[in-house]
Amino acid sequence: MLIVQKYGGTSVGTVERMKAVAERCLRTQRAGHQVAVVVSAMSGETNRLLELTRQLHEDPNDREVDVIISTGEQVSVGLVALAIRAAGGKARSFLGSQCKILTDSSFARARILEIDGQPIKDVLAKGEIAVIAGFQGVDDKGNITTLGRGGSDTTGVAIAAALGADACEIYTDVDGIYTSDPNIVPNARKLDRISYEEMLELASLGAKVLQIRSVELGMKYGVRIHVRSSFSDVEGTWVVPEESSMEKVVVSGVTASRDEAKITLEDLPDMPGIAARMFAPLADENVSVDMIVQNQGYDGTTDLTFTVPKGDRKRSVQLLTDKVPDIVGTKGERISYDDEICKVSVVGVGMRSHAGVAKTMFELLAKEGINIQLISTSEIKISVVIARKYAELAVRTLHDGFGLSLPPADRTGL
Amino acid sequence: MLIVQKYGGTSVGTVERMKAVAERCLRTQRAGHQVAVVVSAMSGETNRLLELTRQLHEDPNDREVDVIISTGEQVSVGLVALAIRAAGGKARSFLGSQCKILTDSSFARARILEIDGQPIKDVLAKGEIAVIAGFQGVDDKGNITTLGRGGSDTTGVAIAAALGADACEIYTDVDGIYTSDPNIVPNARKLDRISYEEMLELASLGAKVLQIRSVELGMKYGVRIHVRSSFSDVEGTWVVPEESSMEKVVVSGVTASRDEAKITLEDLPDMPGIAARMFAPLADENVSVDMIVQNQGYDGTTDLTFTVPKGDRKRSVQLLTDKVPDIVGTKGERISYDDEICKVSVVGVGMRSHAGVAKTMFELLAKEGINIQLISTSEIKISVVIARKYAELAVRTLHDGFGLSLPPADRTGL
Repeated sequence: MLIVQKYGGTSVGTVERMKAVAERCLRTQRAGHQVAVVVSAMSGETNRLLELTRQLHEDPNDREVDVIISTGEQVSVGLVALAIRAAGGKARSFLGSQCKILTDSSFARARILEIDGQPIKDVLAKGEIAVIAGFQGVDDKGNITTLGRGGSDTTGVAIAAALGADACEIYTDVDGIYTSDPNIVPNARKLDRISYEEMLELASLGAKVLQIRSVELGMKYGVRIHVRSSFSDVEGTWVVPEESSMEKVVVSGVTASRDEAKITLEDLPDMPGIAARMFAPLADENVSVDMIVQNQGYDGTTDLTFTVPKGDRKRSVQLLTDKVPDIVGTKGERISYDDEICKVSVVGVGMRSHAGVAKTMFELLAKEGINIQLISTSEIKISVVIARKYAELAVRTLHDGFGLSLPPADRTGL
Repeated sequence: MLIVQKYGGTSVGTVERMKAVAERCLRTQRAGHQVAVVVSAMSGETNRLLELTRQLHEDPNDREVDVIISTGEQVSVGLVALAIRAAGGKARSFLGSQCKILTDSSFARARILEIDGQPIKDVLAKGEIAVIAGFQGVDDKGNITTLGRGGSDTTGVAIAAALGADACEIYTDVDGIYTSDPNIVPNARKLDRISYEEMLELASLGAKVLQIRSVELGMKYGVRIHVRSSFSDVEGTWVVPEESSMEKVVVSGVTASRDEAKITLEDLPDMPGIAARMFAPLADENVSVDMIVQNQGYDGTTDLTFTVPKGDRKRSVQLLTDKVPDIVGTKGERISYDDEICKVSVVGVGMRSHAGVAKTMFELLAKEGINIQLISTSEIKISVVIARKYAELAVRTLHDGFGLSLPPADRTGL
C-alpha cells in the first residue's frame, strides 16, 4: 500500500521525537508499504518567527511573512530526512516548490490548485521515504505561499489525493475522534469510523483535531483519513465516505462551543431589507455571524437573534448602534445581548432518515430543566443555544440519552 | 547608479540592526541609486541549525543540510524586506531559487553557474529594493544548494556581475583592508584601493575580510568591490582591477599566519617519484599542503620541507609513517616537525617590476636577527617561514621597512 503520514508540530517538537517519527516511518515501510511523510514546523517555531516579523512591522506584508514562516517546515523536512537516514533508512526531503504544490497567490491563506505527484512517486519507487513540507506551496510565479494555520493537515490529504494513496494517517496527540469531549463526558467513546460530513460538522464545532479544509479535500477526492496518536500504535478513527461507514448510527457525536455570544434585537419593524441592512456593517468589519433566528410577531414587528464570536460581541453592538440607529434605536435601546451562552450540537448522518432526533433532543434537555434559547438545524446537525452554566450537563445528558457510550450495535431506540 | 550591498550576519544579527540596514538601503536609494541587497543569516543561526543536524546524524547528508541551513538566509531576506517596508520603502525578497542563482549540484560547496538577473532588474525598475538571500542557490533539478562558508560575499559579487552593477559594497565589522593587522601593527594604514590579485594573496593569508571566491569572481567579471563598515559612513577599501589602482606601490600589505606547522624529511633518496609518493597519502586524506620546498644535496639525498594546517600535523606525520615507511623510515626516523612557526608574507603587484623586494625583505629580517627557515615566492608575494615568537616583530619590521604606514606618495625608495 501507499501510505501518507502527517506529523504535527508536537510530534516533531524535539530531536528525540523526530527520531520516534523516523522509527514509525521505517516500521511502516518494513511492513511492506510505500511511505510519504508530511511534517509541520517544530512546535513553537512558527510563533517565534511571527514574533520576529511583528518586531519589524506592525502589519507585516503577507508575501514576506510566508517567506519567513515557511522556513519552519523546511527545517523539519531536512531534520526528519536526516533522522530516517540515521536510523538506516533512505529519505529525501521535498519543499512545496519541489513537489510541486501549486497554489493561488493568496499569501497566508493560499489554496492548493494542483500537485505534481511524479517527483514523489519516483522517490517512493526507489524504496526511499519522501519527506514533504506541510503548510507551504508555491504560486505560478514562483512565490512561496502558506496555507494558513493547520495547513499541514491539508497538505497531507492533498498529497494523498495526488499520489492516489490508500490512506492518509494524521498523527496527533489524541488517539482519535470521540463521541464527545472526554473532559466533559467521561464515558465518551472513540469512534472507529465517521463520515466526512459528520467530521465537518464536528470540526467546525470545536473538536479541533482535523483542519476543516483537509476534511473537505478528503471528501472531494475520497481520501481515507486515519486520525491516530503519535504516541501509541492503537487504531484511531477513520474519516471515510458515508457509504463505507459500518456504523449506521443516528447520532455520532455531541459537542459544545463556549466561544459565542448572543445578540437580540426586539420589536424591529417587520419589512423587507431589515436583515440585510442589519448585517451589512458586521460583514464590512469581518464579524462572522453564526446562528441567525428571526421570529415574526403579530403586531408588525419582528425579533432577530444571532450569535457572534464572544470577542466580537462588544464591537458588534457598537457597530449596529453607530451604523443603523434607525433600526436599533439611537441609543441602542432595542439591542440586548448575552455573553453567558453555550451552543450544544448533536451530529449524525442518520438524522437524514430519522425524524425523531430533534424531538428526543428537546425532551432530554427539558427533563433536566434546561431552557432552549435558540434552535438551528442542518441536514445532519441540530444545534441549540442554552445558558452556559448548563453546558456540561446538557452534553452529558444528550450523550447518554442517545446511547453514545455504547457500541452502536448495543444501542436501543434512538 | 546600480549598487549591490551585501550585509553579513553581524550586520543583521538583531531586529535593531536590521532596521539600521533598512535605513542605509533607503538612504542609498534616496541618493538616486537603484539598490539590490544581499544578506546573510542572522549571526549564530547557521551554527544553531548545524547543531540540530548533528544531533540527528553524525555525518549528515549534504543535500538535507543545505535544505536546513539555507533557511537562515531565507528568514533574513523576509525580515529585511519587512524592515525596509516599515521604514517607508518598497522591497521584495528573493531566494536563490527565485533570482535565479543556478549552481552545480555540489551540496555544501556549490559553485554558481549562472544568474538570471531579469527578475531583480524588473523589481529595481519599479523603484523597489531587491533583498536577495546570500549563500544559497538552486541546481538544475530544483535542489537547494549552498556555497560554503562566506558564500554570501560570493553571492553579492555574482549578483553585481549579473546586474552589471556599478559597485558591490561589502558591509562588515571593519572599515576596510589594512596594510597589516592593526592588532600587531598599530600604525597600519587603511588602503584606499587594492587590486584583485593583491586581495587574493592577502585573503588567503589570513586577512579574512572578503571570501576568496568572491574576489576571484570580482576579478573575472570586473566587479568593483567596496569593503566598508556597516557601523559608519566613511569610505572603505575598493578592490578593483589593477590598471585602475591609483596607488602604484611596490608592496601593499604584510600579513602573518600562525595556522601552520612545518614537516621536514631529511636524507631522502633523490630519485624521481619520491615527492609524488610522499604527498599521495596526504591528498587522499584531504590534508592541504601549502609551502613546499625541496633542496637537492650533493650526496644523492634530498631534503623536503612543507607546511600543513596545524590541526593536521599529527595526522600527517602518522599517515606518512604508515603509508610510505620505505621513504620516511619504518619508525619515521627521517621525519621531523615544528609547530612553533609562522608564515610572514609581503604582497604587492609592484613586485613584478621591482626586483629588489625580496632582498630588502631578507635584509630587514636579518637586521633584527630573525632567521628564515623557508622561502616561497609568487609573482606578487614573498612568504617566509620563521619562528613563531618573531611573528609580531617581523610584521612590524617589514611594515615600517616598506613604509606602509605612510601614504604612497610620501614613501621613499622601495
